[in-house]
Amino acid sequence: MVSTVWVIGIGTGDPGLVTYEAAEALRTVDVFLVADKGEVKHDLVEARRALCEHFIGDTHPYRFVEVPDPQRGPDAERDTSAYGAGVRDWHGARVRAYAEIIDDLPADAQIGFLVWGDPAFYDSTLRIVDRLRAECGPFEVRVIPGISAPQLLAARHAIPLNRIGTSIHITTGRRLVEEYVPDLGDVVVMLDGYLTCRELVERYPDLTIYWGAYLGGPHEVLRSGRLADVIDDLVELRGRLREEHGWVMDTYLLRP
Amino acid sequence: MVSTVWVIGIGTGDPGLVTYEAAEALRTVDVFLVADKGEVKHDLVEARRALCEHFIGDTHPYRFVEVPDPQRGPDAERDTSAYGAGVRDWHGARVRAYAEIIDDLPADAQIGFLVWGDPAFYDSTLRIVDRLRAECGPFEVRVIPGISAPQLLAARHAIPLNRIGTSIHITTGRRLVEEYVPDLGDVVVMLDGYLTCRELVERYPDLTIYWGAYLGGPHEVLRSGRLADVIDDLVELRGRLREEHGWVMDTYLLRP
Ligand SMILES: C[S@@+](CC[C@H](N)C(=O)[O-])C[C@H]1O[C@@H](n2cnc3c(N)ncnc32)[C@H](O)[C@@H]1O
Ligand SMILES: C[S@@+](CC[C@H](N)C(=O)[O-])C[C@H]1O[C@@H](n2cnc3c(N)ncnc32)[C@H](O)[C@@H]1O
Repeated sequence: MVSTVWVIGIGTGDPGLVTYEAAEALRTVDVFLVADKGEVKHDLVEARRALCEHFIGDTHPYRFVEVPDPQRGPDAERDTSAYGAGVRDWHGARVRAYAEIIDDLPADAQIGFLVWGDPAFYDSTLRIVDRLRAECGPFEVRVIPGISAPQLLAARHAIPLNRIGTSIHITTGRRLVEEYVPDLGDVVVMLDGYLTCRELVERYPDLTIYWGAYLGGPHEVLRSGRLADVIDDLVELRGRLREEHGWVMDTYLLRP
Repeated sequence: MVSTVWVIGIGTGDPGLVTYEAAEALRTVDVFLVADKGEVKHDLVEARRALCEHFIGDTHPYRFVEVPDPQRGPDAERDTSAYGAGVRDWHGARVRAYAEIIDDLPADAQIGFLVWGDPAFYDSTLRIVDRLRAECGPFEVRVIPGISAPQLLAARHAIPLNRIGTSIHITTGRRLVEEYVPDLGDVVVMLDGYLTCRELVERYPDLTIYWGAYLGGPHEVLRSGRLADVIDDLVELRGRLREEHGWVMDTYLLRP
């Protein structure tokens, strides 16, 4: 039985993005469980490690346990219910891997999950923690919010995410084309491995795009402009960055 | 001419919600411009003052300039374009008030605006700063993201704002009824002085609502449940809180 599971939003790598309560939470945790997603995401695991060293240092003994991420099934299909089921199976495998580790820890261990950005935006940690609770018995869950990629995107472009009185819609590359209408308001797109907005250019050439990659990290890149004018360069740039760094994470805003 | 205008997201009152880079920015600013919105929002001005004392203390001399907020015209009409125009006029009056103050400051003054939550979500500071730039000549703008009310809402309820693979829609009380369909995904409602979701109960009794008021402050209150089951209590509770404290700020999530 575990006393507290901390789900800590750590921003996107820059120590300046960490909140004071997140830093305090980091110094409370005994064991961090970290999903090892293989080489591609190795940089991200390293970024987490560096943040822990920065904020914890020698103030509190802690361990980093890397849990190999279960192989994820193919999820290229656009069908959302199949996608949801695939994601849930994969979460199940993760939960079992974490549960085995937790079962071997002392009863009062403080367990920590480090969440990239904010746990509220497209992150599965809280769903996994819910299922862990079912497997490992009751424990307290404490969630610490963090600065998310959409917030950094807005800060770097010095814009709000909404126009006066209108809405903000946050969605995924997978849903964008099917869903997009200007009435949604300003649309933030995450989890888009392909700059899907290219498929909107013909219908909506005059959208403004505000784009950012590696936000908050040393390789941060920003671009903005009229969608029809900048999309070709963006596609080219994104491909180049991905080759150069081995991975790319980007977020963008589409404004009518 | 002013060298840098800092737009600093400070979270919602709790010092733990402030990021390290926000704290550093606070210690850089010479003059904070604060809109004084009259007695009702007095608590919020005091919260800002307390955060500055906490993070700056004696490390750097700074001034707080309270700028009386221009009287805002009636904006009860639901017509969005008239609403937008009203808001813009009112911003114009604010801009002139700020510009007068800035014109009297030394050329290299570091000016700061403290933004409740995050500057990216329903905050007019960045629009005002854009217009200030036109009035007071060029200056650099630095935006520091902060933890927003929707993020705190999610953290306190220990939920993500999205379900697997679906979208997040952030909107205002003013737009909710006209806009709402379950296909929007999980809907966050802000700027709602009336718990407008009560008008959705008949059509969508089975929505789950996650509600929070005074998030991150000493009077924080949370409620959640099936919309049809909890709405009457919520309406009553919100009225009571408003009377007790003189003001209430609340945010909620509607999940199909
Ligand atoms: C699994 S989601 C996690 C989001 C994270 N919880 C947050 O709050 O930002 C991953 C997506 O977030 C966005 N993202 C994360 N980090 C980013 C960064 N440093 N720069 C740009 N986008 C980023 C990308 O859209 C990426 O596909
Ligand atoms: C003008 S908007 C500013 C939002 C702010 N920039 C943010 O990032 O949260 C004000 C609205 O934010 C929400 N809000 C702000 N502070 C809050 C708090 N402490 N608790 C609950 N809701 C809050 C309410 O919906 C309120 O009507």
